[in-house]
Amino acid sequence: MLSPELERRLGELTDLSAAGGLLGWDQQTMMPPGGGEARGNVMATLATLAHERQTAPELGALLDAAQPDGEREQAIVRVARRDHDKARRVPTELAAAMELAAARAQEPWAHARATNDFALFRPYLERNLELRRRYVDCFEGAEHPYDTLLDNFEPGLTTARVREVFGRLRQGLVPLAAAIAAAEPAPVLPGPFPVAAQQELALELARAFGFDDGSWRMDLAVHPFAQSLSPQDIRVTARYREDDLQGLFAVMHEVGHGLYEHQVDPVLGRTTLGTGVSLGIHESQSRLWENLVGRSEPFWRHWGPKLRAAFPAGTEDLSDDDLLRAINVVKPGLIRVDADEVTYSLHVILRFELEVAMIEGTLAIGDLPDAWNAGMQELLGVAVPDDTHGVLQDIHWSFGELGYFPTYAIGNIVAAQLWTAIRRDIPGLEDQIAAGGYGAIRDWLREHVHRHGRTVQPAQLLERATGEKLDPAPLLEQLNAKYRALYRI
Amino acid sequence: MLSPELERRLGELTDLSAAGGLLGWDQQTMMPPGGGEARGNVMATLATLAHERQTAPELGALLDAAQPDGEREQAIVRVARRDHDKARRVPTELAAAMELAAARAQEPWAHARATNDFALFRPYLERNLELRRRYVDCFEGAEHPYDTLLDNFEPGLTTARVREVFGRLRQGLVPLAAAIAAAEPAPVLPGPFPVAAQQELALELARAFGFDDGSWRMDLAVHPFAQSLSPQDIRVTARYREDDLQGLFAVMHEVGHGLYEHQVDPVLGRTTLGTGVSLGIHESQSRLWENLVGRSEPFWRHWGPKLRAAFPAGTEDLSDDDLLRAINVVKPGLIRVDADEVTYSLHVILRFELEVAMIEGTLAIGDLPDAWNAGMQELLGVAVPDDTHGVLQDIHWSFGELGYFPTYAIGNIVAAQLWTAIRRDIPGLEDQIAAGGYGAIRDWLREHVHRHGRTVQPAQLLERATGEKLDPAPLLEQLNAKYRALYRI
Repeated sequence: MLSPELERRLGELTDLSAAGGLLGWDQQTMMPPGGGEARGNVMATLATLAHERQTAPELGALLDAAQPDGEREQAIVRVARRDHDKARRVPTELAAAMELAAARAQEPWAHARATNDFALFRPYLERNLELRRRYVDCFEGAEHPYDTLLDNFEPGLTTARVREVFGRLRQGLVPLAAAIAAAEPAPVLPGPFPVAAQQELALELARAFGFDDGSWRMDLAVHPFAQSLSPQDIRVTARYREDDLQGLFAVMHEVGHGLYEHQVDPVLGRTTLGTGVSLGIHESQSRLWENLVGRSEPFWRHWGPKLRAAFPAGTEDLSDDDLLRAINVVKPGLIRVDADEVTYSLHVILRFELEVAMIEGTLAIGDLPDAWNAGMQELLGVAVPDDTHGVLQDIHWSFGELGYFPTYAIGNIVAAQLWTAIRRDIPGLEDQIAAGGYGAIRDWLREHVHRHGRTVQPAQLLERATGEKLDPAPLLEQLNAKYRALYRI
Repeated sequence: MLSPELERRLGELTDLSAAGGLLGWDQQTMMPPGGGEARGNVMATLATLAHERQTAPELGALLDAAQPDGEREQAIVRVARRDHDKARRVPTELAAAMELAAARAQEPWAHARATNDFALFRPYLERNLELRRRYVDCFEGAEHPYDTLLDNFEPGLTTARVREVFGRLRQGLVPLAAAIAAAEPAPVLPGPFPVAAQQELALELARAFGFDDGSWRMDLAVHPFAQSLSPQDIRVTARYREDDLQGLFAVMHEVGHGLYEHQVDPVLGRTTLGTGVSLGIHESQSRLWENLVGRSEPFWRHWGPKLRAAFPAGTEDLSDDDLLRAINVVKPGLIRVDADEVTYSLHVILRFELEVAMIEGTLAIGDLPDAWNAGMQELLGVAVPDDTHGVLQDIHWSFGELGYFPTYAIGNIVAAQLWTAIRRDIPGLEDQIAAGGYGAIRDWLREHVHRHGRTVQPAQLLERATGEKLDPAPLLEQLNAKYRALYRI
């Protein structure tokens, strides 16, 4: 049994994380603009307190003395020990320097992006990189320095493994994207799609997926996100534009994240393990609902008529087949966040390769824009006109966050692997989707993914759920089958 | 100069208080019901952390060593020292017992109220009272045990002083209320007042008082309240019923609270002094805007036409004079929260007298319902039909909160004193109000009340602002003048 004092301390960490989550959610959804300055202070204070509690020697001693019974308690002690040790490895002075450098880089990055002037951002990125190298030095025994960064987002994953998996993914995606680019273009959704009707349809969709008013809420935010404050307090946010349906798909995406948090085993509640295990597994959930459910043919058999009823003027010129093709447009482009299901991972692969080179020291920051542009040409066949639409587009590096990007593509890969298992395990899956029923998918995900929280490492979770290791083959198979049919290649 | 470490610790306390404020605001306005259990844990954890930081010996040592320059820094050290010493006096075990007893009493109180069965609540109230007595014992040197409780809400105020002031107030109010009860009744607002139109009008009113979208927001809540997260992040809540205009007045009330917090001197930001100094002074601000501005004749010269435009059906049968009388109905009743400007303080005086008797031990809890009913007859001339509409109506005692009620009447008294000073200092005040302009009132309150935050004790603040000590005479004069005219007595 775990000691009450250990349970209390883990509960406290869980609570501090939830308080931080609320502060962040409110900042993006509710806070009047004037509240920003004070909010920054409050968030920093809570983060400092959480770090203090996470690194407390008393917590280490309690974990040393713990005598866990059974698998669950063993997992709690193992994961809590890992969190504690990782936090303690990083000197407070370095953690503060990283935070300060990240904060200081925000304005120069935004300004550099707005004025297409990479040189403005360069010294800040160099500083971030220097500090990440010092961070990496705090940890011994990694095969590759980038492993340490990856581990913060995808515990246990190695650079070598990502290289191998992304290499195969790239080999499969580049020719597919090129073939689609050479094929006859898919029709475009004409629109317009009035926002009020989108909001109504999005809520109906969210409810069909599992959103319920007793435990969820949905609000507007500039950048859609999902935030769990507890398994019974899930908040998703949305944003709609009148000229496309991206807002609807973003809602499916965020509800996918939300369902993961909502279906964690309640017994993990205040143990710090009652949340998603990694960003990659989390992204697999959002992508599964957005792409594998939400962009599928049977899905639109059910929702197509509702879409037409909601937006008669915006859809009347399209046949059902053309509607499906319009919803699944593939078009190599410059911007990651606007990318489709096929080309998205190529944007990620580029960033991964550049990050590894930066950490290895084989790519100087001054050479980064050229390397970026060359990579975009090679992977996506597009010419980057300026750094604003190139190397400066994402906020991640301004925060010094390296190791984060790969999880987006891992999510796509894992989603496809899970989908293969779901198709194997759920008889009549297509008919259920075509009838607007998602209970079986939700139950499968609860059983094989969600309920475990952080008790099982990502690789182990995937293997238990699918019988396979991380493998891009199912994703490539699914994308080839789907898009060669849609584009008649 | 204050040491950076002292400033850091005071900033941390401010931040923890703001985080707790957000958790509470969200709970009342946004949180899905399922989030309640986890929210309780998060709030308890933050409260525990705040108490730990508030009582930290390091804070005491920093305050001992502090060498404050000037009045502001001296006030910071004085108030922080006071907060620290008060928190340290109470053993953690007793603080926890009080919290536990309060939590345990909620359900029995609600059940007792719903079933009109005081006996169900009695043991919980006895336990709360026993713990408050132990709390009082932690503090030495008070003239009267109730002083210690009062001090938590109205620093520096004594039981003897409240007795004297409330005694005079009672002497003036009882005959006035009786005279009004014997006069011809005022007309009643017929209504209905559709909620959407009320919301629109309330926002217009709030904006006229000083609400701005850059620093404020307004939401719905079951019980209206105001919450400041920082002077630039003020949140007021409202509730509307179709059959009356109480929701409008509640908005004026809460905006009054909000303005106080909004106009605190920014330099007090993260010092723990950048907030209202006491509940009584706070209530003076809400009552001033609600009653002295919002129920006045010149106010309705401006807003009457807007009200008629918003609710033509609900107002067409009333002349302007009758509208003003309907808005100022006085009617002795059973329920404090429904009470009017004249009878409200009598409800408070009853509770004060009973609380003092309970703490003194001269009133046994078993005799409380009879004492309540006798007091209602004596003060308000009403017969209490059952404990649900009597001694069980308020939640405060179920939390063990004694010493809180008096601040409601103190607020009425202080508001009248400030109003006398405002009338003296602002030439053409009535004309400004009749023109819908409140800038001069807002500026006067900023200068004389708001900006000081907690740097000046309530009694001193009042004396500096008005030249007078706490005195019920202005309130009695104003109420007599206003209501004898309205009721033609």
